Order: sequence, then C-alpha cells, then structure tokens
Amino acid sequence: MKLTVLGCYAATPRSLNNPTSQVLEIKNQLFLIDCGEGTQVQLRKSKIKFSRINHILISHLHGDHFFGLPGLISTFRLLGRTNELHVYGPKGIKEAITLFLKLGDSWTNYPLVFHELTSTEPERIYEDDKVSITTIPLEHRVYTNGFLIREQLAERKLNVKAVAKYKIDKCYFQNIKNGKDIVLDNNTIIPNALLTFDPPAPKSYAFCSDTAFSRRIIPWISNVDVLYHETTFLETEKRLAPKTKHATAKEAATIAKEANVGLLILGHFSTRYQSLDLFKEEAKTIFPNVELADDGKEFDL
Amino acid sequence: MKLTVLGCYAATPRSLNNPTSQVLEIKNQLFLIDCGEGTQVQLRKSKIKFSRINHILISHLHGDHFFGLPGLISTFRLLGRTNELHVYGPKGIKEAITLFLKLGDSWTNYPLVFHELTSTEPERIYEDDKVSITTIPLEHRVYTNGFLIREQLAERKLNVKAVAKYKIDKCYFQNIKNGKDIVLDNNTIIPNALLTFDPPAPKSYAFCSDTAFSRRIIPWISNVDVLYHETTFLETEKRLAPKTKHATAKEAATIAKEANVGLLILGHFSTRYQSLDLFKEEAKTIFPNVELADDGKEFDL
Repeated sequence: MKLTVLGCYAATPRSLNNPTSQVLEIKNQLFLIDCGEGTQVQLRKSKIKFSRINHILISHLHGDHFFGLPGLISTFRLLGRTNELHVYGPKGIKEAITLFLKLGDSWTNYPLVFHELTSTEPERIYEDDKVSITTIPLEHRVYTNGFLIREQLAERKLNVKAVAKYKIDKCYFQNIKNGKDIVLDNNTIIPNALLTFDPPAPKSYAFCSDTAFSRRIIPWISNVDVLYHETTFLETEKRLAPKTKHATAKEAATIAKEANVGLLILGHFSTRYQSLDLFKEEAKTIFPNVELADDGKEFDL
Repeated sequence: MKLTVLGCYAATPRSLNNPTSQVLEIKNQLFLIDCGEGTQVQLRKSKIKFSRINHILISHLHGDHFFGLPGLISTFRLLGRTNELHVYGPKGIKEAITLFLKLGDSWTNYPLVFHELTSTEPERIYEDDKVSITTIPLEHRVYTNGFLIREQLAERKLNVKAVAKYKIDKCYFQNIKNGKDIVLDNNTIIPNALLTFDPPAPKSYAFCSDTAFSRRIIPWISNVDVLYHETTFLETEKRLAPKTKHATAKEAATIAKEANVGLLILGHFSTRYQSLDLFKEEAKTIFPNVELADDGKEFDL
C-alpha cells in the first residue's frame, strides 16, 4: 500500500501549495482521492501513469477538492483513453462535469460512469476480490464523505510441508486455501489450521477530509492502519474550527487515539502557517505516531 | 500597454506548460484574457494583484481557455473581494460557473456580472473614456471570439506657447483640447491646429485564439499595434490545421502581413514541439516583426 500526496493544503492553489488530491496504490490498483485544481500537473510531477487511474473518489464539491476534475477528465480524452473511468462523489457532480464537457463540445470518447452519493450512513461503494471502499460520512459545511479503503482478506497460505506430510493431492489445495478442513482416506480429519498459515493482515486506509471534530466516525475507522485526517488549524485558531467545520491537530490526534489507528497523517493545512512543525508537535501530545503530508510526498505503508 | 503571458500552450496543463491566459495592462486597467487551469497560480508567480482585475474575457469554452475560471472566482471570494467582477464569454458560461459555485454552497459575496456573447459579427462589449473592447468573431470548432482592445483617442495636447502668444484665457483650454477653433476678440479665427499638438496615437491589441486561418478577420484588426495570433502547428503538421480549426505559423504571419500590424506575437503552441524556434523562423519568411509568447513572459508594448 502506497500513498502519494499530490496536494494537501486548504483553500486555493498557490505557487508552492496544492489543494487536496492524493493517490492510494493498493493491491496494484490506483485510486485518486479528491482532485483540486492542478491535480493533473501534480500527477505528471509524481510520474503517475494517467492510464492506471480507473477510479476517482471526490469527498465534497468545494473547489479545493474538485475543480481539477473537468480538466483531468478532458485530458484523459486527449490522451486517447479507452478504459472505463468511474467517478464517485456527491449528487450534482455528474451534472457539473457533463455541463462543462458539453459547453466545450468535447464529450469523452471513453465510458465515464458517475456514482452519485447521497447516503448519510456508511455505504459500500466499491468492491472487487482485492479491495473494498466504504464511505465515511463527515461533518462539514456541505455534504462530505471520507473513504475507507480496505484490502480484502487474502486466502490462507498453504503450508507446503504439512500437505506433503499428509500426502494431500493438489486438487484440494484451493479448498485448503479457502479455509476448509481435509478428510483423509482413513477418515481422519486434518483441521485447516494444521495445513495453512494466516494470510497477511489486510491493510486499510481511511481518508477523512474535510471535517469538523466528530467522534461519530470512530467506530467506522477503528483499528485502520493509516488515518489521513484534516487539520486546517492549530490550537491558536481553535475558535475557527467549529464555525468552519474544520479540525485542529489535537482534534485529529484525539480521533486517531480513540480509533486506535496505526499511523496518523495530517493534512489540509491552512496556508496561513509558515511552518508545519507545530501541527506535528501539537498532535504528538495526544497520539505518538504522526506524520505530516506534503505535496509530492510518498508514504510506503 | 503591457502584456503578461501567463500561459500560451495548447491542450492541457503540464509541468512546465500552462494553457492560455494573459493579462493586458492598458491605461492602468488590467484585462484578463482567457483562464486555463492554473491561471491563478500563474497570476501569483507574475506578482499581479488579484484585486486589480475587474474584467475577464473568455474566448471560448474549451478547457484550456476556461477551466481555471471557477477556481479564480472562488479565490476572489476567499481574498475578501468587494469590487464588481465582469466576465465576458460565450453563452453558457454563466450557467456553468453558477452551478459550480452552487454545488460548493459558496456563492460570491462580491457582485459577479456575466456578459454572455452570442453575436457572430464584431460587437462592442466594453467602453469607458480610456479603453474600448470589441469582439473578433473567429473560426473554431465551437463559438469563439477574439478581442480587440483599443485605447480611446486622447484629447489634443495644448501648445502652451501658442495659447500664450494669442493671449487666450484658461477657460477656453478644454474646448481647445477637444479640437475647437478659437475666435479672438478682434474676430480673427485661430484654427485648432495652431494651438495644439496631436495626441499620442492610441494603442491597440488584438487577441486571436483559437482560430483557423481566416482572412475574414483582416479588416477588423487592420493596423493594430500588436496581434497575438494562435499557431498550434508548424508547416509539417499543416494538414491538421483545417481539421482542428487551428492555424500554422505561416498562416498567422499571413494574417499579420495582410492586416499590416506592427508586431505579431505567436502563441498556443502544441506541446508536441520540443523547440519553438521554428515557429518564429517559419513566420518570419512572411512577416518580419515576430515574437514568441512564453509562460511568464512580459511584453512592454
């Protein structure tokens, strides 16, 4: 699992700060999460192949999470894309993108599939044999979802020595990997635990931006390996957080601690701050394992 | 008159190439012409004050001329703008921008005035005592206008020595500057030409992008000081020009020559070309006074 942060700042793109966008690579699939203005340039700078992106998740329709999408969708067309592109985002996203493309008389020549979200409860929006994605309803000024992206539990690993010892035929191997016990010719039952090892624990990543401090999400993100949580503000601007429905570093760390996550990555920094070190310091007073996002930064998870 | 090129490349924003946008400063007013994705970052890099922009002209609704507009309009709001902003562009632009702002529940708190264009003949879209703007209907795949921006003819300059010699009272000076003759007390008529000098010739700038080669525009841009004309292609890709309704460097130079302009600035280069020198070389075989646009380049005109 690898996270590439394309942009992690709030509000507007600036010379050195990009608004929210990131790519999660998980089980060899790429998921683009949010798409602020300039995302396609950041993708190029991070040398991410456009053709590997088949799913785009949009948390909410504020410009700093969304205004790069019409351009990216148009660029896919110019690059000769033929694969389906799936876009998940709040209701209204289809009308907006469709209108922009229609005005330029430049509809895509690849299948563009919108999945409009309206639920205020967690909702499974994607699933294949390797990965699942569930929404995390967030508390912001407009309808907003975070996303929980989880590897599926892999099949159990065959204990090669054990199956040799019991002389079990190859044709049973898939059943064994699927967790089945085996009955030998002499009617002895060999429990699966003797024939297999546990598969690697499935990794999980929760993206929570933008959101006010909200304990409601804790059960939904409990025990994830990595939590990306917004922290627009430091303690000094704490008074602004509830009003703007954003969070502080300490609030993000409180969520990380109470949800017992492995690693907290902080992002969505207000551009008012010259240095980001204080975000880490303030969060660490509550939760120890904290990293700061940065534009172009890669996390091997 | 000063032109700042923010972006001058075709198709998509890339790490080092920005799509079309430029700022013309004329008589102390700034006019933003086109607004591809990334324009607001380019404005910052060129250190142009956002608050000085009160008029935005959009040639057409292809993404590389327009997809930076929702973000710029939102940023104006975040910067606390209070001045009116006037946006001139093809019909549909109001609906598109309005929808994007509405989806983010972030309508502007400054007056945003749309002037939607539909005419296929040149149309005066702006005029004050110093500057006028007229559309230049272009031939492209979608409805497209260039823009002719002209200084108004200034008042005539008083010949201080001459008015002293004829002992003309101050109260007549404004009439003299306006071109009136003067009747002295002895009924002698002093023709205005003896009392004034010609004002400086009004400067003019024509922006023509995107467009196929079209002699139709020549009378409209005749004798302008500066013509910016698109040249997506070199001669080697000439076959693509009519199909895509773009122009080559030689075609742009032909327009410049036949319209008898002062200076031709070439832009809207396809990103397929490694070097831009050939654009200048090819154009110079037809018209001598050619400059190449470049992102961030300033022309003092």
